[in-house]
Amino acid sequence: MTRHFKHLLITASIFSVFASGCAHRSENSTTKIMPKNSISTSANPDIQKLASLALNNSYGYDITRSLTTEIGPRLAGSVGEARARDWAVEKFKALGFTNIKNEAFPVRGWVRGVETAEILSPFPQSLVITALGGSVATPQTGIQASVAYFATYDDLINAPMGSLDGKIAYISGRMDKHIDGAGYGPANQKRQTGATEAAKRGALAVLIRSVGTDSHRFPHTGQMRYDDAVKKIPIAAMSAPDADQMDRIFALTQKSGKEVEISLRLLPRDIGELQSGNVMAEIVGTEKPEEIILIGAHLDSWDMATGAVDDGAGVGIVMGAAKVLMDSGLKPKRTIRVVLFGAEEVGLIGAFAYAKAHQDELGQHVLATESDFGAGRIYGIQAGKYAATQAWVAAIAPEFAYLGIKAKDGITSGGPDIIPLNMAGVPTMRLNQDGTDYFDLHHTPDDTFDKIDPKSMQQNVAAYATLIWLASEADTNFRD
Amino acid sequence: MTRHFKHLLITASIFSVFASGCAHRSENSTTKIMPKNSISTSANPDIQKLASLALNNSYGYDITRSLTTEIGPRLAGSVGEARARDWAVEKFKALGFTNIKNEAFPVRGWVRGVETAEILSPFPQSLVITALGGSVATPQTGIQASVAYFATYDDLINAPMGSLDGKIAYISGRMDKHIDGAGYGPANQKRQTGATEAAKRGALAVLIRSVGTDSHRFPHTGQMRYDDAVKKIPIAAMSAPDADQMDRIFALTQKSGKEVEISLRLLPRDIGELQSGNVMAEIVGTEKPEEIILIGAHLDSWDMATGAVDDGAGVGIVMGAAKVLMDSGLKPKRTIRVVLFGAEEVGLIGAFAYAKAHQDELGQHVLATESDFGAGRIYGIQAGKYAATQAWVAAIAPEFAYLGIKAKDGITSGGPDIIPLNMAGVPTMRLNQDGTDYFDLHHTPDDTFDKIDPKSMQQNVAAYATLIWLASEADTNFRD
Repeated sequence: MTRHFKHLLITASIFSVFASGCAHRSENSTTKIMPKNSISTSANPDIQKLASLALNNSYGYDITRSLTTEIGPRLAGSVGEARARDWAVEKFKALGFTNIKNEAFPVRGWVRGVETAEILSPFPQSLVITALGGSVATPQTGIQASVAYFATYDDLINAPMGSLDGKIAYISGRMDKHIDGAGYGPANQKRQTGATEAAKRGALAVLIRSVGTDSHRFPHTGQMRYDDAVKKIPIAAMSAPDADQMDRIFALTQKSGKEVEISLRLLPRDIGELQSGNVMAEIVGTEKPEEIILIGAHLDSWDMATGAVDDGAGVGIVMGAAKVLMDSGLKPKRTIRVVLFGAEEVGLIGAFAYAKAHQDELGQHVLATESDFGAGRIYGIQAGKYAATQAWVAAIAPEFAYLGIKAKDGITSGGPDIIPLNMAGVPTMRLNQDGTDYFDLHHTPDDTFDKIDPKSMQQNVAAYATLIWLASEADTNFRD
Repeated sequence: MTRHFKHLLITASIFSVFASGCAHRSENSTTKIMPKNSISTSANPDIQKLASLALNNSYGYDITRSLTTEIGPRLAGSVGEARARDWAVEKFKALGFTNIKNEAFPVRGWVRGVETAEILSPFPQSLVITALGGSVATPQTGIQASVAYFATYDDLINAPMGSLDGKIAYISGRMDKHIDGAGYGPANQKRQTGATEAAKRGALAVLIRSVGTDSHRFPHTGQMRYDDAVKKIPIAAMSAPDADQMDRIFALTQKSGKEVEISLRLLPRDIGELQSGNVMAEIVGTEKPEEIILIGAHLDSWDMATGAVDDGAGVGIVMGAAKVLMDSGLKPKRTIRVVLFGAEEVGLIGAFAYAKAHQDELGQHVLATESDFGAGRIYGIQAGKYAATQAWVAAIAPEFAYLGIKAKDGITSGGPDIIPLNMAGVPTMRLNQDGTDYFDLHHTPDDTFDKIDPKSMQQNVAAYATLIWLASEADTNFRD
């Protein structure tokens, strides 16, 4: 598939992952949906076994602690990501998994460099910024220019061609907080295509208000994309407090008629082709070993933090849930495959590599899902596009009531790394986490292990363990 | 006074400011003490006038916004601090104050440079750190050394001389959250004297867990002090999540017996003598103009943020309160002097300069206080050491009930910049702010204007306006 087509597809699909189906809820109503004490007991003795192990131990939490402490940041293609793959192989071995594989694929290397921004006038002060992933650099000495202010991405789109000649474009605009991350897609437009749209209009560089929902002095990075037909200009995100400051400064200068002058220096580098990889392992099914239930997470993280909620938590949840099933003594009929994808953050590179490497067995992937939305409690269970999957999810939803989880409307792609499988016809479903606070930390230096609640991790592990057991036992053809 | 004596005194006095008198309260009980809806109406028609202005306008909030937006960071001796003095003079003029003065004094200049720390082994990853104010630099190429771990400052004190030869000392230890900041004194020992105590035992450098109460990836800076008789070694603070990570890593290596190796590079510079200054202005009293009621705040901030809660809020509160009194039409009998101190953060330099420059009129300072504990609501009113001040505060406390403020036991020095005046015999008192969350932001890059609640600012301004009016009208000799 061409890069351009893949890009459109990814953009559209990521949007659907976060935006589909769920009504927007406030933080308060979240509390009502998922009271902390909602864990009761399942009537199913198998599930009781799984729940007892998951809810009285720290399977997932311990794994996430190990990854984030012993490895730390895991940027796609980096030494840290390579160490994480070795860690994953060793961890799978230590936990007793079989068919452990480390499947390599290439990824384009990019590293952050010097990144500074200063308001030169009228109110001199420095700004906290960071380059978006994939951004080109400014000249070594930086760019000094006046700033064109856009309150929203749409305002930039409405600006005439040529109107930004010689300027730095600043795009403001807040992201809304929702339990399902519904604010992410709209807010992310400026990150994805801000550089291209500003370059078309003549800009030298772009600054954006971070795509995030916090009010701390952390910029949020994240992959941006260029259109090969348009000049590539550097782009960086500033923290929410710095963006608030810019908004206040522009409110003053729009009265006084003064220009806002900024000095911007961004020196990230493309460092050529590097190696990434997907690490996977199995519990082999007793009756239908060729039928694969895939639960995934991604092993890579952004470079500024230890990637605890994105996606160390997911790694802990899916590895921990499979280990719970193993420890329970229950023997799944189908094979449970845990896949830890590489290079998710830079464009689902590992996900596409997996789909390609395993194209001959995709017909045997009976169900696939991913945990990649932090460490919040699960409140919903949602099916992918097939009627059989939808019927099955509706039928088994009551089995999750003991965890406070209810059936959720809408169709899911299954998670970011499941998108290529979904596209290839693999049935998907998802356990929906409370992501209300996820974008407070997402892609910032603040995404660290202390942010993870061990009780929520237990609930997640119990839910995934319940899911893979039920999926293994089901007679359903999820693809019907 | 010798530097050493001053240091002891400051340390002791700062401790007393935060630690004296108040029982420790949890965050929950704070809510009970100061319900958000506790503002009712005073029975005193003069106070009604003041309250009506203060609570229905944004006197303080607007001033703090202007300072933090138009000036930004204001490190002692810096261009930013000089711009803040010009701003203060212009703001006092614009607000209609008289006897505006900008009194210069010298301050030692110090600037932050490169500051990086990396764990080299066993788990390579970078740490978020910042130099403490006044720290010397490492060699240009940094220091690579193994780390000696101390769970607490007391553990360092108990380490034998020579036991840290060739090592970097790491001092962990958390700060407790209290409404009155009572955790600050104990937690701050490692910041104040950690470098000296580690150097005595042979250490090459020191890292500390930040003195703060948050769990975000911000290091907290703050002034440290050297003992001239002991070798000066560099010292930096790491963020709470990084300190948690160190604690986890040491828990693992203490089992495995491995050393933790760190590379530390800190290149701050002493840049010689610079100029700072105190800016002040008055509302001249109608009957006893020679008698001065001093309300202060400090104009300088640390360099990494715009100093909103420390102490842009205080600047807004005291300037705003005096302006409320001016706008009310009430004419104070005594002179109200608003003093914005310079170079507070680096050792109360402006406070001592003020006491020296005004030594001949200190006898005419009838009462002095400072707002320098953030932008939280005021819950208490507390007197200094004189019996007459104590009696007066007890008598007027009911006048503050309309703001949810009650008399508070214990003796106050009046605030950090009031310490030299208190030492010189000037009567002091204090309006006690809820500082439960103050040390989440204190001395971090996150101390920005968005953290300030406009309603709390209104309550603070109303309280200070009420205070200066009552103090102006009182027949009390506060010094008795």
